[in-house]
Amino acid sequence: MKVKIAQIQAHVYEEKGENLKELERNLERIKDEKIDLVTLGEMFNCPYQTPCFPVYAEAERGETWQKLSALAKKYQIYLSAGSVPEKDEEGHVYNTAYVFDRQGRQIAKHRKVHLFDIAVKGGQCYQESATLTAGDQITVFDTEFGKMGICICFDCRFPEIVRLMTLQGAKVILVPAAFNMTTGPAHWELMFRGRAVDNQCYMIGTSDARDEQAGYISWGHSLVVSPWGDVVAQMDEKPGIQVTELDLDRVEAIREQLPLLSARRTDLYELKEK
Amino acid sequence: MKVKIAQIQAHVYEEKGENLKELERNLERIKDEKIDLVTLGEMFNCPYQTPCFPVYAEAERGETWQKLSALAKKYQIYLSAGSVPEKDEEGHVYNTAYVFDRQGRQIAKHRKVHLFDIAVKGGQCYQESATLTAGDQITVFDTEFGKMGICICFDCRFPEIVRLMTLQGAKVILVPAAFNMTTGPAHWELMFRGRAVDNQCYMIGTSDARDEQAGYISWGHSLVVSPWGDVVAQMDEKPGIQVTELDLDRVEAIREQLPLLSARRTDLYELKEK
Repeated sequence: MKVKIAQIQAHVYEEKGENLKELERNLERIKDEKIDLVTLGEMFNCPYQTPCFPVYAEAERGETWQKLSALAKKYQIYLSAGSVPEKDEEGHVYNTAYVFDRQGRQIAKHRKVHLFDIAVKGGQCYQESATLTAGDQITVFDTEFGKMGICICFDCRFPEIVRLMTLQGAKVILVPAAFNMTTGPAHWELMFRGRAVDNQCYMIGTSDARDEQAGYISWGHSLVVSPWGDVVAQMDEKPGIQVTELDLDRVEAIREQLPLLSARRTDLYELKEK
Repeated sequence: MKVKIAQIQAHVYEEKGENLKELERNLERIKDEKIDLVTLGEMFNCPYQTPCFPVYAEAERGETWQKLSALAKKYQIYLSAGSVPEKDEEGHVYNTAYVFDRQGRQIAKHRKVHLFDIAVKGGQCYQESATLTAGDQITVFDTEFGKMGICICFDCRFPEIVRLMTLQGAKVILVPAAFNMTTGPAHWELMFRGRAVDNQCYMIGTSDARDEQAGYISWGHSLVVSPWGDVVAQMDEKPGIQVTELDLDRVEAIREQLPLLSARRTDLYELKEK
């Protein structure tokens, strides 16, 4: 079974609504390409700076959500709408990834569970927890192509989360993300390739485009990695759209040839969701 | 704290004793280099073919074991003696890694827990379980440099085992191994780099040298990867000795800067040894 995906690596505008207009322009550009699934980057509608998150945040089913749902329906696509800041009724703000089906129905919602707090000497410092609250669920969802999983950027650093999504049946893992100029060159491709080989699944990492003027400079390099660990396609740092076809039959074929899932020694170790 | 290691990537002779003689010649060559730890490849004294394992196997404390212990003591090194076929009292044969300290005392013993049974279409087919029995323990041991872990080749394919060794305190993971001409170019370096970054530890992969005439052709490419994921040193496919210095202070520094261990969401998922 084939899945045609389009990764939109877009510039993040300071004006929130402009990012939705840009998304619609991009969807219009590829409307005749029979895309099944469109993916966007992390915080695609909000500058990736901690003070911005509460200001840009909206409730689930708010204005941004409505527009995303409408676009999924209009173009009859699965839309993994990157992530956006979400505010709940108690005022907590989350880094949230919504996924819509071809009818515009929300079929998944993942709140980033590992907040990005790092301080690399001479490199990147960042503290997402200054304004964000962490989610508390691992997210796998059904599609007409079978199960997929989704996690956000730093979540993917933790092998447990991708392993658990795989064990729950995901054959494609979507990762809206924004690595930076320290971690990007060091670990971006490596992380996606490693997770793909270990879990014998497709890994889809979608970043925002690089903006040298931004407070946080994204690495870009949106990519697709096969269950054998090959980089199927990888962008550079500029805005653009990358169209790729996934062959889901490869997942089963590779899992049969190299039994990295079935040969797990579950009598010796146990990984479980709590 | 620094650890000076020497990886001996040797030719595997059909005559079992010749491999020990070759080891002694190699240790003699580096005896003035103040090596702390010497590592060898998987099944360094036995052709990597399933019918050979029962024939070459010896009991723990057998002739080969005695010689390895004596060499560790003679050269006052920690000796991670690759792996060898071991036969227990009931006749079961294991792929076993012994580790000796500078006094020649055995300080660790790991029996491969994930047997290598694969059938890659148009590539490598192999069935270790035809003659071997799997071990049932994860192995971490103390040294004057702190805790280290050891697992054998295919074991390292499973992120759970390296994660568990790390959680038990290992900062250096030794992996006697022998990838082949299918999995080597595809996954050898990737696997060691991925595990190193995820667990922020030194990964030491030591292979046998390549022998194009052998039934199983090893990839070679013994390597050391830093806790940041850099390849510190990597050999080609030929016999040789690679000397590298590990800086264990980097482990703590990197773990502090990029909190991939402390930020695990142990309230959401749990990995444990059974």
